[in-house]
Amino acid sequence: MPRYALLVEYHGAPFAGWQRQTSLPSVQGAIEAALAKLEPGPHTIAAAGRTDAGVHATGQVAHCDLARDWDPFRLSEALNYHLKPDPVAILDCAVVADDWHARFDAVERRYLFRLISRRAPLTSEAGQMWRVNHDLDAEAMQAGADHLLGQHDFTTFRSSICQAKSPVKTLDELRIEVVPRPVGTEYRFHVRARSFLHNQVRSFVGTLERVGAGAWQPGDVALALAGRDRAACGPVCPPQGLYLAGVRYPTDPFARG
Amino acid sequence: MPRYALLVEYHGAPFAGWQRQTSLPSVQGAIEAALAKLEPGPHTIAAAGRTDAGVHATGQVAHCDLARDWDPFRLSEALNYHLKPDPVAILDCAVVADDWHARFDAVERRYLFRLISRRAPLTSEAGQMWRVNHDLDAEAMQAGADHLLGQHDFTTFRSSICQAKSPVKTLDELRIEVVPRPVGTEYRFHVRARSFLHNQVRSFVGTLERVGAGAWQPGDVALALAGRDRAACGPVCPPQGLYLAGVRYPTDPFARG
Repeated sequence: MPRYALLVEYHGAPFAGWQRQTSLPSVQGAIEAALAKLEPGPHTIAAAGRTDAGVHATGQVAHCDLARDWDPFRLSEALNYHLKPDPVAILDCAVVADDWHARFDAVERRYLFRLISRRAPLTSEAGQMWRVNHDLDAEAMQAGADHLLGQHDFTTFRSSICQAKSPVKTLDELRIEVVPRPVGTEYRFHVRARSFLHNQVRSFVGTLERVGAGAWQPGDVALALAGRDRAACGPVCPPQGLYLAGVRYPTDPFARG
Repeated sequence: MPRYALLVEYHGAPFAGWQRQTSLPSVQGAIEAALAKLEPGPHTIAAAGRTDAGVHATGQVAHCDLARDWDPFRLSEALNYHLKPDPVAILDCAVVADDWHARFDAVERRYLFRLISRRAPLTSEAGQMWRVNHDLDAEAMQAGADHLLGQHDFTTFRSSICQAKSPVKTLDELRIEVVPRPVGTEYRFHVRARSFLHNQVRSFVGTLERVGAGAWQPGDVALALAGRDRAACGPVCPPQGLYLAGVRYPTDPFARG
C-alpha cells in the first residue's frame, strides 16, 4: 500500500481537536471520512501534532495508506472535494516511503499564537486571535519568554493530563513579533521545539500575557519554571489564537523533486 | 441633541447589507437596536457607504443623535456591549457638530478587495476573500486597471439598480498589491474615489480577474469602459472579498485634539 503525506490546514472551532472521538467531530475523523469516499475504510491516519479542541493549523502534517496508486495532486483535490463543507483543506500531498511516519519522523514543530490588544470586539477576525482589553508590554513579555529558552523540566507549563514520558523538553524559539494594526496591536508568539508537552504553548502565552499586563515581573517566569509545579503557572490562555504552523522532517516530504 | 460620529467595523456575512430592512438583519438595524438600549428610539443613523449584502467594513463611518451628553469612549463601550453577539464593533466615537453628516460631508471612500489564487479551499479565512483556482497575471490586471483611472462615464461598471444621479465619477486609485502567501498568492485591490456607483468595485474586480486569467486583454477594459454599456462588463465578483476600508472628511472627526 503506498503511503501519502498530507499537508493540512484547518479552522479548529467546530472540532473537539485533531484526534478521532466516538461522538464528537474531529479533524482526524473528517479526513478519514473523506478517505473512505475514495477507498473503503476503515482508515487510520497519524499526525505530527494532536491539536486540542479549538486549535487551528496552517501546517499540520499527517500520513495515510491507500490501496491504489494516486497521483498526489489528484488525491488532494479529491479529498478537498469530499471534505466540504468542513473547514479542513489539504494544501499538498506527496508519496512517501512505506515506513515514513508523520509523527515519529518529525524533528521540529512550529506554533504561532496570535494575541491582540484592543478594546472593541473582533468582527471578521473573531475566532482567529485571543483578544484582551488592556495594553501589553512586549519587551517585558520577551524578557519573560527568554527565561524559557533551552532545555528545562517544563512541569509548570504542562497539563495535568499530559501523557508525555518526560517533562524535559528543549525550547528552541519563543519570539514575540509586534504587529501594529489599524486598531490595537497584535502580538505574534513564534514558538519552536522538537516536541511539546500538552498545553505547553497556551501555558506559556497565558503566563507571558500576565507579564505583559504588569501583573507578573519577567523574573517571575523563571521562578515559576524553577518551581516545577503546575500551580505556579499563569492561567492557560484560550485556544482560538493557536496555530500549528509547521512541522520539519530530516527531508521535506513536500519538496519538489 | 448632541451628534456623535461612529467608526464601525463589521463582518458582512450575516447581514443583508448596511441599510435597514423590514424583515432582514442589517448593520444599520443592529446599531439602531443597540442605541435603543441606551435611549428610547426610534433611532435613525446615516453612514458614509451603504454596503451591499455580504460586504465587510473596517472603516465605515456613521453618525447618530442622542438626547444625553455621552462620553464618547463610554458610548462606544456601551454600544459594543449591546451589539454582542453580532459581528459589529464600534472602533471609535467622537462628538461632532450638529450639522455634520457622515454621508454628505465625506470627500473620499476607500475600498479594499481581497482576491486569492490557490487550489485548496480556505479554512480560517473562509468568507474573508474571494478565492479562484487559477493563476493570475498581476501586471496584466494592473495594466487593465490603469485604463479606469480618472474621470469617466462608468455606466459599464454600474449596477442596473444604481440610484446615483450621474454615471460620471472620478477614480483616484486602483492599485493591485501582490501579497505572497504560504499557499497561493493574494491580490489586494486598493480602490479610492470621492464616491462610487452601485456595484462599481465588484464590477471592476470581476472584470480585472478576467484579465488576470488571460480571458481578457488589458485593452479590453478600455473598450468596455468606452462602450458605456452594462453588458460590456465582466462578471460581478462575489462580495466576501470587499471591505469598506476608510472614509475621509475635510477634518478627521476622530483625530485627538
